[in-house]
Amino acid sequence: MNDTKLKVYSLSEIDHLKVHGRTTSNLSPLTLFWTGSAIECQVKGSELWIEFEVDYDHYEPWVSIIINEVPVSRQMLTAGRYWVCLFRGMNESVLKNVRIIKDLQAMNADSSCSLQVHAVKSDGEFLPVKDKPYKLEFIGDSITSGEGAVGAKAEEDWIPMWFSAIHNYSTITAEALNAEYRIISQSGWGVLTSWDNNPRANIPDYYEQVCGVLTGDKNKALGAFEENNFAAWQPDVVIINLGTNDGGAFRSPEWRDETTGETHKQRLNEDGSYNEMDLQAFERAAENFLVKIRKYNKDAHIVWAYGMLGIPMMPAISRAVDAFVKNTGDRKVSVFQLPITTDETVGARNHPGILAHQYAAKALSGYVKEILSAR
Amino acid sequence: MNDTKLKVYSLSEIDHLKVHGRTTSNLSPLTLFWTGSAIECQVKGSELWIEFEVDYDHYEPWVSIIINEVPVSRQMLTAGRYWVCLFRGMNESVLKNVRIIKDLQAMNADSSCSLQVHAVKSDGEFLPVKDKPYKLEFIGDSITSGEGAVGAKAEEDWIPMWFSAIHNYSTITAEALNAEYRIISQSGWGVLTSWDNNPRANIPDYYEQVCGVLTGDKNKALGAFEENNFAAWQPDVVIINLGTNDGGAFRSPEWRDETTGETHKQRLNEDGSYNEMDLQAFERAAENFLVKIRKYNKDAHIVWAYGMLGIPMMPAISRAVDAFVKNTGDRKVSVFQLPITTDETVGARNHPGILAHQYAAKALSGYVKEILSAR
Amino acid sequence: MNDTKLKVYSLSEIDHLKVHGRTTSNLSPLTLFWTGSAIECQVKGSELWIEFEVDYDHYEPWVSIIINEVPVSRQMLTAGRYWVCLFRGMNESVLKNVRIIKDLQAMNADSSCSLQVHAVKSDGEFLPVKDKPYKLEFIGDSITSGEGAVGAKAEEDWIPMWFSAIHNYSTITAEALNAEYRIISQSGWGVLTSWDNNPRANIPDYYEQVCGVLTGDKNKALGAFEENNFAAWQPDVVIINLGTNDGGAFRSPEWRDETTGETHKQRLNEDGSYNEMDLQAFERAAENFLVKIRKYNKDAHIVWAYGMLGIPMMPAISRAVDAFVKNTGDRKVSVFQLPITTDETVGARNHPGILAHQYAAKALSGYVKEILSAR
Amino acid sequence: MNDTKLKVYSLSEIDHLKVHGRTTSNLSPLTLFWTGSAIECQVKGSELWIEFEVDYDHYEPWVSIIINEVPVSRQMLTAGRYWVCLFRGMNESVLKNVRIIKDLQAMNADSSCSLQVHAVKSDGEFLPVKDKPYKLEFIGDSITSGEGAVGAKAEEDWIPMWFSAIHNYSTITAEALNAEYRIISQSGWGVLTSWDNNPRANIPDYYEQVCGVLTGDKNKALGAFEENNFAAWQPDVVIINLGTNDGGAFRSPEWRDETTGETHKQRLNEDGSYNEMDLQAFERAAENFLVKIRKYNKDAHIVWAYGMLGIPMMPAISRAVDAFVKNTGDRKVSVFQLPITTDETVGARNHPGILAHQYAAKALSGYVKEILSAR
Repeated sequence: MNDTKLKVYSLSEIDHLKVHGRTTSNLSPLTLFWTGSAIECQVKGSELWIEFEVDYDHYEPWVSIIINEVPVSRQMLTAGRYWVCLFRGMNESVLKNVRIIKDLQAMNADSSCSLQVHAVKSDGEFLPVKDKPYKLEFIGDSITSGEGAVGAKAEEDWIPMWFSAIHNYSTITAEALNAEYRIISQSGWGVLTSWDNNPRANIPDYYEQVCGVLTGDKNKALGAFEENNFAAWQPDVVIINLGTNDGGAFRSPEWRDETTGETHKQRLNEDGSYNEMDLQAFERAAENFLVKIRKYNKDAHIVWAYGMLGIPMMPAISRAVDAFVKNTGDRKVSVFQLPITTDETVGARNHPGILAHQYAAKALSGYVKEILSAR
Repeated sequence: MNDTKLKVYSLSEIDHLKVHGRTTSNLSPLTLFWTGSAIECQVKGSELWIEFEVDYDHYEPWVSIIINEVPVSRQMLTAGRYWVCLFRGMNESVLKNVRIIKDLQAMNADSSCSLQVHAVKSDGEFLPVKDKPYKLEFIGDSITSGEGAVGAKAEEDWIPMWFSAIHNYSTITAEALNAEYRIISQSGWGVLTSWDNNPRANIPDYYEQVCGVLTGDKNKALGAFEENNFAAWQPDVVIINLGTNDGGAFRSPEWRDETTGETHKQRLNEDGSYNEMDLQAFERAAENFLVKIRKYNKDAHIVWAYGMLGIPMMPAISRAVDAFVKNTGDRKVSVFQLPITTDETVGARNHPGILAHQYAAKALSGYVKEILSAR
Repeated sequence: MNDTKLKVYSLSEIDHLKVHGRTTSNLSPLTLFWTGSAIECQVKGSELWIEFEVDYDHYEPWVSIIINEVPVSRQMLTAGRYWVCLFRGMNESVLKNVRIIKDLQAMNADSSCSLQVHAVKSDGEFLPVKDKPYKLEFIGDSITSGEGAVGAKAEEDWIPMWFSAIHNYSTITAEALNAEYRIISQSGWGVLTSWDNNPRANIPDYYEQVCGVLTGDKNKALGAFEENNFAAWQPDVVIINLGTNDGGAFRSPEWRDETTGETHKQRLNEDGSYNEMDLQAFERAAENFLVKIRKYNKDAHIVWAYGMLGIPMMPAISRAVDAFVKNTGDRKVSVFQLPITTDETVGARNHPGILAHQYAAKALSGYVKEILSAR
Repeated sequence: MNDTKLKVYSLSEIDHLKVHGRTTSNLSPLTLFWTGSAIECQVKGSELWIEFEVDYDHYEPWVSIIINEVPVSRQMLTAGRYWVCLFRGMNESVLKNVRIIKDLQAMNADSSCSLQVHAVKSDGEFLPVKDKPYKLEFIGDSITSGEGAVGAKAEEDWIPMWFSAIHNYSTITAEALNAEYRIISQSGWGVLTSWDNNPRANIPDYYEQVCGVLTGDKNKALGAFEENNFAAWQPDVVIINLGTNDGGAFRSPEWRDETTGETHKQRLNEDGSYNEMDLQAFERAAENFLVKIRKYNKDAHIVWAYGMLGIPMMPAISRAVDAFVKNTGDRKVSVFQLPITTDETVGARNHPGILAHQYAAKALSGYVKEILSAR
């Protein structure tokens, strides 16, 4: 290999690199926090490499490589600092669009888990990446983290291999609409509580931070807890796909904080219906989340899109959205039911499979398209 | 990472490893020559790694990793000797089926190109891989090498990235029939000549060797030119998908061997039809190939499956098969037309895309199923 | 033809005839009022005819003939009393299931329109029709009347030919669930008003009658305005697909009763949003309709299924359902969003086409299946 | 009904009526012999009726009505002379394209079976029917007669109800290519013999007649046995879909003519293969049929399209086509394999169902499109 012809660039040296996903302004190195976070470039050259630095205690990150809009590679990134080849042997005079996408959610469960990019090397030149006409932000749980979109139905391990940013309704929707997008998601989390009633495992509390769902000093040093720069990236539409874990909490045991003794439980009535007070707590949390989202996204249409794993919380979500509209006079909020996952479309770990994500994206992109065309 | 718990095994140490694809008996290391060649194991353990040794001048090999029948990773293998992690963090008491598949054809164009496997390491144990009830052998050209099955339609570079053993009618057919399979294929080659009239670039001359389409001393040392051990693996059905390049030769310029001055050209008549003598040469070559295949596969049904890029050679193929049946009395040979690739199903480099491979596999597997059920 | 072997039976003579759809107890003749209304029989014989009596001023009825679950004929029925052959020349010793389905909605716009059945004739015997395990009632507008499910996209005439009970989400859903079903539907009508603001063109006011949406003395004589015998047929699930015309009313001109001078108009605010008071009137009407449906169907689960032509009224529907649950404590009511009709799935007259009905049925039947399995 | 506004036209009175399918020049009345035969008109009017005259001993004809390219009605025509309404109540100033298609093959098994058209009546005017750019002729057996394309899989009766000209690969292919078409077909017949070895039940012997497969004095009087006017309608492509019954004959008992004692049997060898002499007789018959088709269609490309019910005769068909090319130098003949019918696509009576016809049409129309674009 004639490595001699390849020139190494730190990320800050390249004018025309595009970073996708919430992160800090630090490019030395760049940290990719969220699933779907990516770097994108237009390269005229025969060869391109990327230098990763990877760390974790338990859960290793994965990446997918997309060349000219087509996925060509998906691989586990084991710990260390090393170069990965993105392409080689191509016609040096032809322009390529390349995206390297983090294929794993931010990992609250592993404070050591990080994926960083130090540099790229190539024999070619970097040209401007064309902006897309729309911006979408997706906020969700395991569904939006693409949990189970890869892997056999029988798989039960909770491991990074089964997560996918690519075969994910969010990415497919964004592609169908020719939109840039960001994903804020965490498996198991909800609006008010997690699936197991933990009131701290809620997305809204961390929405204003770069990646507040993470923990630990290392992530603090990486800037995960800084305030996100909302001014720099204002979405046209925010899609919230939360509520599934809040619904599950009603059927899960009480959560207890072993250190403080604090407990929480979303309760069922004896007849199996949801306890009214607990349901109202969810609704207030949902309404408050809308208020917070609106605070940071003045012009966005907000769609609460729900239903890929059933619709038990739909009435409560509708009421919350309704209350928000009534209390604020803000009409740019709506509810959209996503198609349910079936035996034919289910993936690993009883989560939506590729087909379920494709169907959801087809329905959602049709709906969002109308919203975008009305703006 | 607690690498300490992982134990390294040379391939010959593992009782229950299954090797797919023609190769030598050497396991120290194992050479994977053909696309679709693979090693398969049943592992009860939490983690598994594989040690590759990779070399090439121009064209790097790729591999796909299949866990419990589902592709989870596809990656370029750059030069060197190193470990790749296949899975980690899984439930150690659950059995996994793992296949590592070479995703690139044997590379006649690069005598340095090789992919070898030295060892695996795991914290688990290796259990017997279940035999599948059928065996299929596919013989073909770029179509059977899966050229263009990955990548955007606009791609024009002839590089390994666009080849696929996975999104390939051969693999999909084998899976649909629950069959083991082997692939013998080379882009551009034919029965009599290559697409550019080279009479040496024909598959039949090399059929009896382990991987005779390769060249060079290194491949000789690896055993590529040894006689294949046919007794060890007798297919139920041999599928020949050749003729596309022989047809193309009629429309390509004359081939000339610069050293010997030797030339060859399959000629067109003035009215655009095929020159009768040259067509007959093809037919004799096809018939002779059937004789050779039968010599080494006494009981196999032979299907000449053709048509994914058009059917101009179909009459000649039919005549060749007919002549074989008439001259030998051997009726276990038939012709099957594969569905043509359309604008909707085409992939990169004007070759069949994933959809074209899926359609072809659907048609072919239906046909082969009948043959198998009649055996 | 040997008519001599055929024996004529008045409907009341046959023990095992099954009548589908709301009607009176009169079988001499039987009146089929609603779309999807049908007679069904199990015949062991070679030939079967049916005697219709048909009348109308403007809009002729159509029927579809279903043999062994497969549609074999669809025809216009012109005015008169005459025999139509359903099958002939079949094996006399084989049992056939035959359904003759009215393929046109009750016609409020034509008080003369009627379809009656006097008799059947056959050379065979009539055996019991097997009961299906579930019963569904569909209540809707033009969507549920299958308007536009037949015919080219360019068609604009409002004529019976473009209506279909067969290629209709209601029928397809019922078949997918192996359920009997009834349809109550009227094009243009709503919960509070029709698409053109007529407050009398609402389904709820007529729900308790056999077929109250009809008019005129003839229909009175036929029993259309009698109270329906709810005790005789209690559905497991009632599906309400109303709201589309109520939404349209906001964008249509004021309705005026020329004789009384009475007017009505659902108003838009200046910013294009719905007038709050008018929207609340809709919500009260929707809630009251739920109260009425519950009165007559004590055990049914009620699903408000909406969305095939957009979801502007979804928040209001959700609030209405919510208010009903809150005010009654009755939890067997839910909202389900149906997939929207797209350019690819639209039919004649800008209404859902066959594909749109199939997609809606796939989504709805999945949802209703869960409800039925939880009963 | 205001019949008074309707004016009756004998067919010969209308300038712009288009007749599809082989028939005589007689329009008083017009006889529709073959399946797919049709009359087509462009009407600007609100209402249109057609006057049929129908006769049969056993097998009644069926028709389908197509308005603006969409099937709206399909009905059995019982014996008699009567009017059928094609449409009514439509906008009188809009132009409609209307086709009335015979949905049943010519019935060799019932010499009394006939379908004639005497007149039409309308309140509108008849405008020119636009010519389509291509002409296709289909020659076949039960597959091309659409036997089993309608009806449940369990149906076993051989009755007109299960035949379809509409859900037929020939009609679907013609529509995909925007072509006029004619069908020559007869269930059970072949190139050399019928499925039961009757050497008289072969299509080639009757090809030059208007509808020579019929029998009896009535059909003679109707002109069925006259020489077809080939000059008046020259196809661009002739598609022959024969061979399935010739293949079946090898596995059926000997045919015997009870009056002459003559017998015929296509024989199997002991090992289950086809008797060489009998197979050659088929091949000669096939080659001779090509000679005859060419005689009457000087410029047409001829495609032998075969395979919807398996491909056992494919080698023999290929040889026959090959021999024709060799003996005549005529290269405008080719063989095309149609996709086989599967469990998922089968219809009634073990024949291709709607899906099988759609798949076959998709493959065939792609192939014929290339031929047409090369002309």
